[in-house]
Amino acid sequence: MRGGECEIQYQVRTDPHPQPFSRLREKGVNAQLQGINVMSTVKPNYARALDIKNGRVDMSHGSGGRAMAQLINELFAAAFNNEYLAQGNDGALLPAASGRLVMATDSHVVSPLFFAGGDIGCLSVHGTINDVAVMGAKPLYLSASFILEEGYPLADLKRIVESMAQASREAGVPVVTGDTKVVEQGKGDGVFITTTGVGVVRDGINLSGDLAQPGDKILLSGTIGDHGMAILSQREGLTFSAPIVSDTAALHGLIATMLDSGAKLRVLRDPTRGGLATTLNEIAKQSGVGMMLQESAIAVNQPVEAACEFLGLDPLYVANEGKLIAICAPEDAPRLLEVMRAHPLAGAASIIGEVTEDSHGFVQMTTKLGGRRVVDWLAGEQLPRIC
Amino acid sequence: MRGGECEIQYQVRTDPHPQPFSRLREKGVNAQLQGINVMSTVKPNYARALDIKNGRVDMSHGSGGRAMAQLINELFAAAFNNEYLAQGNDGALLPAASGRLVMATDSHVVSPLFFAGGDIGCLSVHGTINDVAVMGAKPLYLSASFILEEGYPLADLKRIVESMAQASREAGVPVVTGDTKVVEQGKGDGVFITTTGVGVVRDGINLSGDLAQPGDKILLSGTIGDHGMAILSQREGLTFSAPIVSDTAALHGLIATMLDSGAKLRVLRDPTRGGLATTLNEIAKQSGVGMMLQESAIAVNQPVEAACEFLGLDPLYVANEGKLIAICAPEDAPRLLEVMRAHPLAGAASIIGEVTEDSHGFVQMTTKLGGRRVVDWLAGEQLPRIC
Repeated sequence: MRGGECEIQYQVRTDPHPQPFSRLREKGVNAQLQGINVMSTVKPNYARALDIKNGRVDMSHGSGGRAMAQLINELFAAAFNNEYLAQGNDGALLPAASGRLVMATDSHVVSPLFFAGGDIGCLSVHGTINDVAVMGAKPLYLSASFILEEGYPLADLKRIVESMAQASREAGVPVVTGDTKVVEQGKGDGVFITTTGVGVVRDGINLSGDLAQPGDKILLSGTIGDHGMAILSQREGLTFSAPIVSDTAALHGLIATMLDSGAKLRVLRDPTRGGLATTLNEIAKQSGVGMMLQESAIAVNQPVEAACEFLGLDPLYVANEGKLIAICAPEDAPRLLEVMRAHPLAGAASIIGEVTEDSHGFVQMTTKLGGRRVVDWLAGEQLPRIC
Repeated sequence: MRGGECEIQYQVRTDPHPQPFSRLREKGVNAQLQGINVMSTVKPNYARALDIKNGRVDMSHGSGGRAMAQLINELFAAAFNNEYLAQGNDGALLPAASGRLVMATDSHVVSPLFFAGGDIGCLSVHGTINDVAVMGAKPLYLSASFILEEGYPLADLKRIVESMAQASREAGVPVVTGDTKVVEQGKGDGVFITTTGVGVVRDGINLSGDLAQPGDKILLSGTIGDHGMAILSQREGLTFSAPIVSDTAALHGLIATMLDSGAKLRVLRDPTRGGLATTLNEIAKQSGVGMMLQESAIAVNQPVEAACEFLGLDPLYVANEGKLIAICAPEDAPRLLEVMRAHPLAGAASIIGEVTEDSHGFVQMTTKLGGRRVVDWLAGEQLPRIC
């Protein structure tokens, strides 16, 4: 008993280098003894600091006990550091928010976890902020839930968490609550991160995929295919003359200036998985309209184009993580384009086509050679685990 | 081209029995041709219905394309069916909410996915609703994000999704937005589900883990260890004279009656991973107080006790999914206990101890034999993948 009659206090701590107890674990008999030493010490509440440099995720980091609390305090809370997370409860208590709410969620399973231009950490922040922002909302809060694979290096986890924290700080959207689970080796793939975002929409803003009208102009904020080809070229070990870098970025600042411009925006959406083609088909279906695109107006970075050609991929179907599609009333398109081009994230924005009357919801494209083609949905699987 | 000059329309569809293209996928050259047949048909927009009975999750269900849209429409949207999800945008647009917000998130990686008393589907709804509710909030909305392993049977996924949908309906908390990712076989474990909940707290309610005061009474809503031992006995193939059934349940109704009772509640928390012992230690640490428990007041179902004894586990550290701890002012404890016992989810509620003055934050217990022991944090790993 502590602090009582006995002179020596017993302190239970987690062994930083536990022996494998897999056989015991299989039998479910790991119980209180696994990875635990009882040692005598005079320092109450002493716990060895997390060995970030050489340590690895082990099952005890998902147990709900002391090891998990240590991981959360020394790694997650230290990086995300904010008043809401510091409450230390099962959820975060947040101020009242005025305006309609928006909620969006995304699981991130990108492979590899680190890629040119980013990593799963910043991607999981950007992706969810963008999903909230394209609803016309100001993103306010994020939650982050981690599924870690046993054995994943803590040093790499720290890099990911710090990248997340930096993206969250830069975006001004704090990670206010979270969760950590650990699965056995071979039952996960390093790190999966699910983020959920909450935001508010101010009065007068109404954006939705079903609001596109014939005659509306379709704007695109920049080049396509950068994120998907950055992942793929890295995964396949391909190198091109110029490096391909992911465009992962938080778009809520750009969107705020677009909303402030007063242009009659109908739809905003970020063309992630499935690429520009699939996203435009979704909107066409929701709105019950067709679309006519100009291939010549759709910009593709040269190395991305080369990589796509080499691999037999169409950049129209390749994922983006820092681009948006805007559909607006035709009279406002020039002004909107100007506002977009003035923003660092949309310098290469262009009007890529217009909405047409078509009850079949076909998206068509005038090719560079002057022909016409249907730009269909992505039908099979283009690139797995791109985000 | 469709609907144009040619008589026969071409329709691209996903082959329900695609040949393995793993070599191509490894090379990243699966592109537009994988699993796709071009067939002539006269029915525009025809797509074969999802083969729920015999089908399996494949990589295309996470692609962002047509196969994913079909999975979402025919399986997820059909089950969760509500006006917010039906908006079909990247996020859900929700009414303004009055009151402070609460946000909580949990990833669920329980194994096995189906267990006595529930499954990962209803568990993922209950768990997050409870995390929101113990903050004193009325849960309003849930998001659900799925990480599916390639090859997982669609029939089992449907059971899980329908269980989720039922739990969500029964709780009156709709799943308003979601996401689906697919990882390769061996990179996941069937189904992982991350849910995030948003709720609102009305004025005058202030609950937090740091508000416990010496003299406060500690109440527990029922027996402990049921969920953890239900999972473990199933995982290990153990059978006992009486079946052990998970207590998974949504506690927001019970909590609402407790809040309405007017009792001066300080802390509510659900003792999940790490069990009663770890949760009480968390609260003691947050509040800078000690606790003295009465072992005789802590109820354990007989089969749970037997199973714990057999496996060398302490029920104090075993997870619960439908129980709560309440800490309240001493004068209100009898009234609160009465209100709790009148609710179907807390018929076996009891006062299990009281908060003491102790700057070390020790949780102690008077045992049934009259001795005293320290009830420490869970230090190693008790039961992996319990929720």
